[in-house]
Amino acid sequence: MHAVLLIRCADRPGIVAAVSTFLFRHGANVVDLDQHSTEELPGTYFMRLEFQTEGLDLPLERLGEAFAAEVGTPMGMEWRLASHAERRRVAVLVSRHDHALLELLWNWKRGDLRVDIPLVISNHPDLGPSVESFGVPFLHVPNSSASREGAEARMVSALEGQADLVVLARYMQVLSPGFVDRFAGRVINIHHSFLPAFAGADPYRQAYDRGVKIVGATAHYVTAVLDAGPIIDQDVARVSHRDSVEDLRALGRDLERRVLARAVRWHCEDRVLVHGNKTIVFS
Amino acid sequence: MHAVLLIRCADRPGIVAAVSTFLFRHGANVVDLDQHSTEELPGTYFMRLEFQTEGLDLPLERLGEAFAAEVGTPMGMEWRLASHAERRRVAVLVSRHDHALLELLWNWKRGDLRVDIPLVISNHPDLGPSVESFGVPFLHVPNSSASREGAEARMVSALEGQADLVVLARYMQVLSPGFVDRFAGRVINIHHSFLPAFAGADPYRQAYDRGVKIVGATAHYVTAVLDAGPIIDQDVARVSHRDSVEDLRALGRDLERRVLARAVRWHCEDRVLVHGNKTIVFS
Amino acid sequence: MHAVLLIRCADRPGIVAAVSTFLFRHGANVVDLDQHSTEELPGTYFMRLEFQTEGLDLPLERLGEAFAAEVGTPMGMEWRLASHAERRRVAVLVSRHDHALLELLWNWKRGDLRVDIPLVISNHPDLGPSVESFGVPFLHVPNSSASREGAEARMVSALEGQADLVVLARYMQVLSPGFVDRFAGRVINIHHSFLPAFAGADPYRQAYDRGVKIVGATAHYVTAVLDAGPIIDQDVARVSHRDSVEDLRALGRDLERRVLARAVRWHCEDRVLVHGNKTIVFS
Amino acid sequence: MHAVLLIRCADRPGIVAAVSTFLFRHGANVVDLDQHSTEELPGTYFMRLEFQTEGLDLPLERLGEAFAAEVGTPMGMEWRLASHAERRRVAVLVSRHDHALLELLWNWKRGDLRVDIPLVISNHPDLGPSVESFGVPFLHVPNSSASREGAEARMVSALEGQADLVVLARYMQVLSPGFVDRFAGRVINIHHSFLPAFAGADPYRQAYDRGVKIVGATAHYVTAVLDAGPIIDQDVARVSHRDSVEDLRALGRDLERRVLARAVRWHCEDRVLVHGNKTIVFS
Repeated sequence: MHAVLLIRCADRPGIVAAVSTFLFRHGANVVDLDQHSTEELPGTYFMRLEFQTEGLDLPLERLGEAFAAEVGTPMGMEWRLASHAERRRVAVLVSRHDHALLELLWNWKRGDLRVDIPLVISNHPDLGPSVESFGVPFLHVPNSSASREGAEARMVSALEGQADLVVLARYMQVLSPGFVDRFAGRVINIHHSFLPAFAGADPYRQAYDRGVKIVGATAHYVTAVLDAGPIIDQDVARVSHRDSVEDLRALGRDLERRVLARAVRWHCEDRVLVHGNKTIVFS
Repeated sequence: MHAVLLIRCADRPGIVAAVSTFLFRHGANVVDLDQHSTEELPGTYFMRLEFQTEGLDLPLERLGEAFAAEVGTPMGMEWRLASHAERRRVAVLVSRHDHALLELLWNWKRGDLRVDIPLVISNHPDLGPSVESFGVPFLHVPNSSASREGAEARMVSALEGQADLVVLARYMQVLSPGFVDRFAGRVINIHHSFLPAFAGADPYRQAYDRGVKIVGATAHYVTAVLDAGPIIDQDVARVSHRDSVEDLRALGRDLERRVLARAVRWHCEDRVLVHGNKTIVFS
Repeated sequence: MHAVLLIRCADRPGIVAAVSTFLFRHGANVVDLDQHSTEELPGTYFMRLEFQTEGLDLPLERLGEAFAAEVGTPMGMEWRLASHAERRRVAVLVSRHDHALLELLWNWKRGDLRVDIPLVISNHPDLGPSVESFGVPFLHVPNSSASREGAEARMVSALEGQADLVVLARYMQVLSPGFVDRFAGRVINIHHSFLPAFAGADPYRQAYDRGVKIVGATAHYVTAVLDAGPIIDQDVARVSHRDSVEDLRALGRDLERRVLARAVRWHCEDRVLVHGNKTIVFS
Repeated sequence: MHAVLLIRCADRPGIVAAVSTFLFRHGANVVDLDQHSTEELPGTYFMRLEFQTEGLDLPLERLGEAFAAEVGTPMGMEWRLASHAERRRVAVLVSRHDHALLELLWNWKRGDLRVDIPLVISNHPDLGPSVESFGVPFLHVPNSSASREGAEARMVSALEGQADLVVLARYMQVLSPGFVDRFAGRVINIHHSFLPAFAGADPYRQAYDRGVKIVGATAHYVTAVLDAGPIIDQDVARVSHRDSVEDLRALGRDLERRVLARAVRWHCEDRVLVHGNKTIVFS
């Protein structure tokens, strides 16, 4: 079994030595180590360690307590220790476009995405049968700018305690700051453009009108500012004057599902750390 | 010898038949044919024909006159007929960064870019020796927002009648609307971002601050609106949290020179047609 | 409604003129025209025309007869005229890996792949329920080098007259020359490498052992020579020393399904022409 | 000032702890750390540490001695410690194609490639003036299968003690096993194909004849077996039926110079480790 230790702290000499010595002493065999120090001064330090738990001299929980006492607290670290055995619970919000949702469900069913999917919520009933054919509960919560408050209350009560991550797989409703706050750092959206180009509505139409030669898709954490949260991943495809808006949408569907699936997987494998409005991705 | 016929007209049935029948009757052997109709109504039709001139029953000039009389004028076409033997004269404007300029000079010297380069103009003297080592005249014209009028007058007098195309290979001064008008459709700029993201100053810094995972470069025709002219080509490269602003700049240099060289070559081979604020590229 | 005219003939002057004049006279409005002449002498000429049928002065069938009489036969053309209304019937052969098959089924169900899928055949029973959940018949035909003859006879009797195209979506059995001959030019395979590198068995293992930095997938027509038929499309992804064989396989799954879906779509839209051991793709 | 410590040893627990504790005790501030363990058993462990030398309690040389005594020898490591201040001496061998050579010279002149270039050797005199215009000595050593022995003897006497790395920038002569042995692990070649596809002569012609849809270039260490040494980097570009062999060569030139420049930079920054016939690249 593998476990992951994620660390963030003020940069200073000796962090690697302290952490790796601690793990070595307790019998953890490090199989992957990634780190990053930001350039600005004072710098911030980020680290991700993946280790085998077989040789540990303590149960994982007790290892966490020991780490806090011996390293984490003395060095002023924020940290998180999680076993690969824990599966994240990922709820999906979607409207009518099914491609990004289905990509997640297929990857999940095939075992390529090792998470639990307790629930799919949509503001339209259309995708219910598709979702339920995967054995996943589907909840229809009508939503509009007028009914937002009630709709979000229903969604919160369905999600709270049930979901570690909320994925917006082309959910075409704006979420209120209150909702975003409640799941801060735990909502991932797929935006159908190469942000920051073409933020806002109908980005493929915007891209077509601007005559770009490349279109893109962006997976990002949702913050109070629309389409401005920390970017996790992006991808692009070449287009030409021959492509209609509809062609861009079709190309984009492939980009969106690929980028979103990758971002969700990275998040659930504890590979993404947020720093200000940017991400560190230990992929 | 090859020649190229470029056509633009209102879309209607029978254009291909009229043009190809005309060329066949005069002994032109078509080796490449590309066309495009815009989607909006009424549509606009664009065509590029490349043909061998060996079997022509008329000199190329006379063929043009015959085309005007028999096809072009009756069908209301804008058209242009040019022999590959004609080399475009490409002048380059540059400031201090040499990478995009040198790429053009190298491609030209090696014969990969079949044009003449009559002149390089810079607002700094630094690159003079490099340029002159290629046997290309170098003109230093100091420029700033204060001295723009006089500087542009000097440049115009050096360029007028000498250059079919003006290439801004990282020329860091804004050109006045008057200058742009005078060379309308004949000024290509390389912008060091994936437009429309990060228009304006220091785009690599902007990209770094936004935390994008892909950076790009854009070659476009210059119009009165800064960074908003028709896009000819774009390219991108993946980046990560590990890349500093300086790393983005280094990656960007490779993108910029590649994208600009491609755009200049396409323009000089009559492969680019402008339609509104977009381009048709018959590459 | 659109129709497509595909042409192949010996290269000679006047082909475009003859074909476009014929279509113009009969009221066909050409919306897309693509052509290619091979370089070798004597050259071969290929053309794809897409036109609107609304203004035709004849039914499509009669247009074909007229084309044969007036253009096709006099100019010694091989040609094919097909309406977009005709849907190709695509049968899929698969073993145990479901990703390439499911991509086709999803694209088909969503309307992105406009074909009929009359049948999926597998040498294993495993994927039956998945296939049938799409409402597509599933036929289990055990196959091995020992039982090939009987297995292929069963498949032929199920496919003959039922399928215009046979897609090998990771079908892990070699087909006999007799089978391949019977469906000559109508069998597309996805090979899980960047051919011609790593032909044969377990290409991801071969790629891993060779230490390549990029892996790929290749869609090609099946011929009597294993993995050597005309290539329709390829795509690649970057890998590093960090990627295990299993990681290459996971990355490859994404490449395979994308490349195969694209190749099948192009084939069914009459965009692929075979010339010797190469393809002309009018994409 | 930065220094780099490269380590290779049998995998075992405690390596990171031992190395990072040693560096911390001596005042080295680690700014970059990358590691890799191979999957096979027993595994091999690779590590690259980049650290600031300002706070060291010892001169760099003495630090090396201390590392050997305290960590390297006890743990059975192969290691190498080098300051960024040391510039590698890179000699280039070339025939008639100048693109890959010029890319290196330009990057070097512009400061993007921080090495010394003591010498360029060619079996043709053609590129002498170009090379000398950069202020780099040029040596013409005619070479052919008949004169190989004498030619290599002349090259060895010019290179020995003068070059840390020998780069074959399209050097079209085969080197003898004796020559390769003498510079084992220090000769980088650019092969103009996506190896292992199209090893051997005229790979663009081979690629054209096979009808591939993507072409590539490969930078690799030279070993006794032609085109079979450890791959450092590869890159690819899309092609179509429209591209002639000459078009593939032109596209390939861009790939070759980009891939080779990257591989040389990585090698000179101590980012490449060879393991069997594969590379670990800490890029």
